[in-house]
Amino acid sequence: MKIVKTIEEVRTAVKAWKAEGLTVGLVPTMGFLHEGHESLILRAAAENDRVVVSDFVNPTQFGPGEDLESYPRDLNRDAALCEKAGAALLFNPEPSEMYADDACTFVDMRALTGELCGKSRPIHFSGVCTVVSKLFNIVTPDRAYFGQKDAQQLSVIRRMVRDLNFGIEIVGCPIIREADGLAKSSRNTYLNAEERKAALVLSRAVKLGSEMAESGEKSADAIVSAMKKVIEAEPMAKIDYVQAVDAVSVEPITEMKPPVLVAMAVYIGKTRLIDNFIYEG
Amino acid sequence: MKIVKTIEEVRTAVKAWKAEGLTVGLVPTMGFLHEGHESLILRAAAENDRVVVSDFVNPTQFGPGEDLESYPRDLNRDAALCEKAGAALLFNPEPSEMYADDACTFVDMRALTGELCGKSRPIHFSGVCTVVSKLFNIVTPDRAYFGQKDAQQLSVIRRMVRDLNFGIEIVGCPIIREADGLAKSSRNTYLNAEERKAALVLSRAVKLGSEMAESGEKSADAIVSAMKKVIEAEPMAKIDYVQAVDAVSVEPITEMKPPVLVAMAVYIGKTRLIDNFIYEG
Repeated sequence: MKIVKTIEEVRTAVKAWKAEGLTVGLVPTMGFLHEGHESLILRAAAENDRVVVSDFVNPTQFGPGEDLESYPRDLNRDAALCEKAGAALLFNPEPSEMYADDACTFVDMRALTGELCGKSRPIHFSGVCTVVSKLFNIVTPDRAYFGQKDAQQLSVIRRMVRDLNFGIEIVGCPIIREADGLAKSSRNTYLNAEERKAALVLSRAVKLGSEMAESGEKSADAIVSAMKKVIEAEPMAKIDYVQAVDAVSVEPITEMKPPVLVAMAVYIGKTRLIDNFIYEG
Repeated sequence: MKIVKTIEEVRTAVKAWKAEGLTVGLVPTMGFLHEGHESLILRAAAENDRVVVSDFVNPTQFGPGEDLESYPRDLNRDAALCEKAGAALLFNPEPSEMYADDACTFVDMRALTGELCGKSRPIHFSGVCTVVSKLFNIVTPDRAYFGQKDAQQLSVIRRMVRDLNFGIEIVGCPIIREADGLAKSSRNTYLNAEERKAALVLSRAVKLGSEMAESGEKSADAIVSAMKKVIEAEPMAKIDYVQAVDAVSVEPITEMKPPVLVAMAVYIGKTRLIDNFIYEG
C-alpha cells in the first residue's frame, strides 16, 4: 500500500488503474480508524479491484467551538489498518493541499439538512458535501462507502450524488458496535472510564426504540419519548436531539411509516456522540 | 452525429469512447447556436477525438422576471450547426431529465459573484455552477469550452474547477462579433431593426475602453466613465453596469493593473446585452 500526500499522486495512481480496466472503491474517512472504518474498507476491497482510503480531518465541516483541534490523529495506526484490510492507496493530504487560501466554491443542500445534526451543526453538511465532491473528483471512484452511523450524512451524500449526477455508486454499511453495544466512533477515545459506561445509554435507547418500532408502535412521539427517558436517567448524559424523520427526505414525521430514521446526538460530558436505527417496516 | 435526450445515453456513448482511449470535449450551451458557439465546437473538435454539445436552457440560472420562457430555441438549426462543426453527440434534455422535483443540491461561490452580472442576477451563478457541475459529471470530458463573452462565467467556472478539483481543462475562447462589431448572442434575435443599430454602443464602448487601456490610461474610473458616456449618448440604451474588476478575483479595482476585466450589461429596449474586454497589459 502506498501513502500519498498530494492530489497529483492520487490522480496518477487512479489513471494507471483505469488504463488497466480496474475498478476503484473510495472510503472517505477523517482517520483514527476503528472497526467501523475497517468494515467499509473490507467491503470496498471485496467489491473493487483497488481501494483508496482518504484520511483527512476536514476543517470545513467543523463549526466554531467544535473539536477540530483535538480530533484524534494516528496515521501510522491508520496505515497499518488500511493495508491489512486491503487498501491500495492511503491519501493523507494537508489542509493546504485540499483548500487554496482563496477557495470560495461550496456544495450545499436546500433540504435534508434542517433537522438532526444539520440543526445543531449549521455549516457541517456544506463542509461534508464540498469535501466529498472534491474527493469524488480527485479519485473518480466507481463506488464510495459510507457508514450508516452517520445516517444523515449518508442520506445527504445519496441525494448529492443523485442531484449532481456523480457516476458513483454509494454503498451504505451497517453500524459496527463494541461488545456492550456502544457504536464505534473515533470520538469514543475522548471518554474516561466513567463516561464510557454512561455512553451506553445511546445504544440502550436505540435498542428500545427499535424494538418498539418492530413491535408495531406507530407513534414516533411515543418511541422518541421512551428513548429520551432512557437517556435522561443517566446524569452524565445531555440530549442534543432525539428525533424521528423520513429516512429519505430527513423531514420530521409523526407516524412510523417506513423507512424511518430515528437518530440522536447526546453529550456525555463534553463528548458529542451519535447513534441511530432505521425502521424498514 | 447523434441527438440524445437522456443522461443514460450520454453516459453510454462516453463510456464506449473512453474504452477506446478517445478524448472528449464538452461545449455547454443554451442552444440557438451562433458563430460564437460554432467557434467553441470547432476548437473542441480540433483538440479532442469526440465532442459533446449540450443544448439546454437551464431554468435554475434564470431569476424571476427574466427571459426563461421567451429564450429562443431551434433544435433543428442547432443540430445542423453542431454536425457541420464536428460534434459527435448533441445532448438536449428536458428540464425534468436534469432536475428531479425534489432536487435540493447546489454549487455556489462565496466570492467572484458579488459584482457585474452576479450583482444584477443574484441566483444566476449558483444555477450556472450547479448545471455545469452536473454536465461535467454526466459527460466527464477531458476539456470544456466556454466563451470569453460571458467573462464572469468563465472566471467562475475556472475557480469552481480548481476548488472542487474537477479533472477537466477549461478552455476560454475569444468573443465572436458581427461585421459591425456587435458581439454574437442568442439574445440578439430579440432586437428589432432600430434596436439592432442602437446595440452597437456596447462594442463601440468596448473598443474605446480597450484603446484607452492599451494607450496607458491607468485610471479604471476614467476608462469606465468614458465608456458610459458613449452608451448614455444612445437614447435606447440603459446601463445595468459598466465596471472594471480584477479578471481573476472579479473584485472592483481602481488602477488598471493587468489582468483587468472591463465588463458591461446594457439594456437595449427590453433586451439585456453584455460585452467586455480583458486588458492583459
